[in-house]
Amino acid sequence: MTVTAAQGFRAAGVAAGLKSTGAPDVALVVNDGPSSAAAAVFTSNRCRANPVLWSAEAIKTGSARAVVLNSGGANCYTGAEGFQLTHATAELVGELLSGGGSEPRAEEEPGGGSGPRAEEEPGGGSGPRAEEEPGGGSGPRAEEEPGGGSGPRAEEEIAAIDVQVCSTGLIGLLNDRDDLLAGVRAAHAALSDDGGAAAAAAIMTTDTVPKQSVAEGTDSAGRAFTVGGMAKGAGMLAPALATMLVVVTTDADVDAATLDAALRRATRVTFDRLDSDGCQSTNDTVLLMASGASGATPSVDELAEHLTTVCHDLALQLLADAEGADHEISIEVRGAASEDDAVEVARSVARSNLFKAAVFGKDPNWGRVLASVGTTSATFDPADLDVALNGVWVCRDSGPGEPATSVSLEDRAVSVTIDLKSGPETATVWTNDLTHAYVHENSAYSS
Amino acid sequence: MTVTAAQGFRAAGVAAGLKSTGAPDVALVVNDGPSSAAAAVFTSNRCRANPVLWSAEAIKTGSARAVVLNSGGANCYTGAEGFQLTHATAELVGELLSGGGSEPRAEEEPGGGSGPRAEEEPGGGSGPRAEEEPGGGSGPRAEEEPGGGSGPRAEEEIAAIDVQVCSTGLIGLLNDRDDLLAGVRAAHAALSDDGGAAAAAAIMTTDTVPKQSVAEGTDSAGRAFTVGGMAKGAGMLAPALATMLVVVTTDADVDAATLDAALRRATRVTFDRLDSDGCQSTNDTVLLMASGASGATPSVDELAEHLTTVCHDLALQLLADAEGADHEISIEVRGAASEDDAVEVARSVARSNLFKAAVFGKDPNWGRVLASVGTTSATFDPADLDVALNGVWVCRDSGPGEPATSVSLEDRAVSVTIDLKSGPETATVWTNDLTHAYVHENSAYSS
Repeated sequence: MTVTAAQGFRAAGVAAGLKSTGAPDVALVVNDGPSSAAAAVFTSNRCRANPVLWSAEAIKTGSARAVVLNSGGANCYTGAEGFQLTHATAELVGELLSGGGSEPRAEEEPGGGSGPRAEEEPGGGSGPRAEEEPGGGSGPRAEEEPGGGSGPRAEEEIAAIDVQVCSTGLIGLLNDRDDLLAGVRAAHAALSDDGGAAAAAAIMTTDTVPKQSVAEGTDSAGRAFTVGGMAKGAGMLAPALATMLVVVTTDADVDAATLDAALRRATRVTFDRLDSDGCQSTNDTVLLMASGASGATPSVDELAEHLTTVCHDLALQLLADAEGADHEISIEVRGAASEDDAVEVARSVARSNLFKAAVFGKDPNWGRVLASVGTTSATFDPADLDVALNGVWVCRDSGPGEPATSVSLEDRAVSVTIDLKSGPETATVWTNDLTHAYVHENSAYSS
Repeated sequence: MTVTAAQGFRAAGVAAGLKSTGAPDVALVVNDGPSSAAAAVFTSNRCRANPVLWSAEAIKTGSARAVVLNSGGANCYTGAEGFQLTHATAELVGELLSGGGSEPRAEEEPGGGSGPRAEEEPGGGSGPRAEEEPGGGSGPRAEEEPGGGSGPRAEEEIAAIDVQVCSTGLIGLLNDRDDLLAGVRAAHAALSDDGGAAAAAAIMTTDTVPKQSVAEGTDSAGRAFTVGGMAKGAGMLAPALATMLVVVTTDADVDAATLDAALRRATRVTFDRLDSDGCQSTNDTVLLMASGASGATPSVDELAEHLTTVCHDLALQLLADAEGADHEISIEVRGAASEDDAVEVARSVARSNLFKAAVFGKDPNWGRVLASVGTTSATFDPADLDVALNGVWVCRDSGPGEPATSVSLEDRAVSVTIDLKSGPETATVWTNDLTHAYVHENSAYSS
């Protein structure tokens, strides 16, 4: 259990035929409330995929009732048709969760009466949910059918804007509309309280294992709450910028502003410091949804603590599953004048192909570390730097220190420590080595 | 002939045993004048090698009588001893050119009387040279012995500060002092009017071929002048930031300010736009020396034109000889609001491991181009970008254009064209693909 570890969530993962392998490729995570508060962070790439364009607007409501994710295609730079497909996907999820949309896929009209899947509607017969719906108001779900011919959309029904969308796969590839929408219906039909694992599997691309994590916390009144998450992609961000997608759920009862603050605090020191190959995806999304079902009301600090635990755990799982990597490298910068300086220096080393190739070759080439440090604008004295590899201070005061021959790079875990001797701040960035397998997998992906 | 193509220069390249292979590893280029005007640009890396620290100070005189270069060790982060070795190297060259320094190497004292190599002193018996020496004054060379016990240094003698030093090889490795200084003596003994080719060979590290180029120009009075150059390294900057070293000579008679202006103009659009793997060397140096021997007095424009020709030619030779590369990629950005924007966008693509691996795999993956463009701060509309690969506009208006399947990446030369549709400016950056051989060569260099 992951995204379904927290109370109030159901999830599913199904195979819709988007992947030629027949592996699961559509996931759905639904927040059954009572709250639907949500927050998200997205790629800072200015070239953003259609689902990011959609979701970044939709999240401005501070609310999300569901997120639908597909692998097998990034829906990025696919033109107007691509955006329409993202919108249609969100719309269909809204309809299904509102009790509609369940016709055979050949017709695909929005709305329509409830069908055999009516028993899977969220909040069916539950009181608390109805009170939390955006716009207030409540009523029998069966009467809340959206759009299509069956009357004006009621304010309380679940609309497209309540649905976040994530996609991952090749840029420029538009998924088959019928296949994707059929997959959404199948995922809706498969929703269950323990569907987290299936959802985590369905968002995988070249991931070899699904990534999931759970943490438990208590608020100041001693009420327990759960934070659970799933992630895909990352490490090398291979192939084809296949994207880091992360969904985290919690049953804490907090508002969107609290979620947003806690999420940004957590991602800033976890996912934002995972820099496998310096290539930034067009589709990255980290979504946090809160059901409020636990009744716990943690503060930003309390929530951020456990959220950071989950995000850190997921980030390291992504790092460890990076395609083709032989080493996980943590780069800690100490003695920085500012945290920004520390991150800039660590990131510059994380992006040095020469250093990363050296680690692959188990070559303790500390000169390549210094050469990267020197490209930054951080505060330091070039004549007074220390560098350690796996704890061996091979460079002291900008000169040779302990013999590099005493450094072993046999283990997967490699630590680089850089002391700028310029202040009290520190930061760690994680990356991988540059391997033949990275080149292979990224040269052979779409062709 | 390259650095010796212009009148007034002698050069040599010898094997001093710094390279374990026994290949040539010490080069010397001497400007016999009458002028000794010079200019240089150095790496912008803040972690700079000892020779760069030395040469950047020395060039402030606007004058250089010689440059001594060694491969087989970068003399970077080698501590105080490393700087002392750089200084000793420059000092020895000055002594040798002043007629001293020719004792057996075991003694290594500066100064001393002239020995059997006196016939190789620069300017020996020539009039014009003496008049151009810094500080004015002239006199018999034999009496200008530096330092060591034989009287006060005469103003007109060639001092260490008149000598530029370049080194290339592993960071943190200090060359054997005796070997290096003996190599300098041997190079001095081997100086000749057609020693350019030998010098170009001696600065090679893993270069497979020496790089040389010559251009001829005329000033506004119709007087001919020559620009010739040699270069090493580059491309992947492999191995170990082995550095781009470039020496360009000209027999034009121009002052240091003119040289500096022309050099910066030329390097800005040539070497500065060669970005093989985003890794910046600690040792990069481009040195320009003018002898004035032709009597031609070109303007900055006239000199810059031919200097740019030579630098462009050398840059493309470096690109073509990049270790492990299968493709030379030129990335042209059009329609930019500023030249800086164009360079930023082109450079971001040049640094995308994902795109470079795709080119290696002959995969026309234009999504990876857009994903890189999106990381920049350049002016453009993400929804209105065009991208061509080898002239095929695979992306039009930020959507799929002509089929990517019609792009062939079989040839070594690959062109990427990006139209930002935001202005009149353009720029081109050159890079290589990311290959198995790159990973191999850079993972196996020092170990």
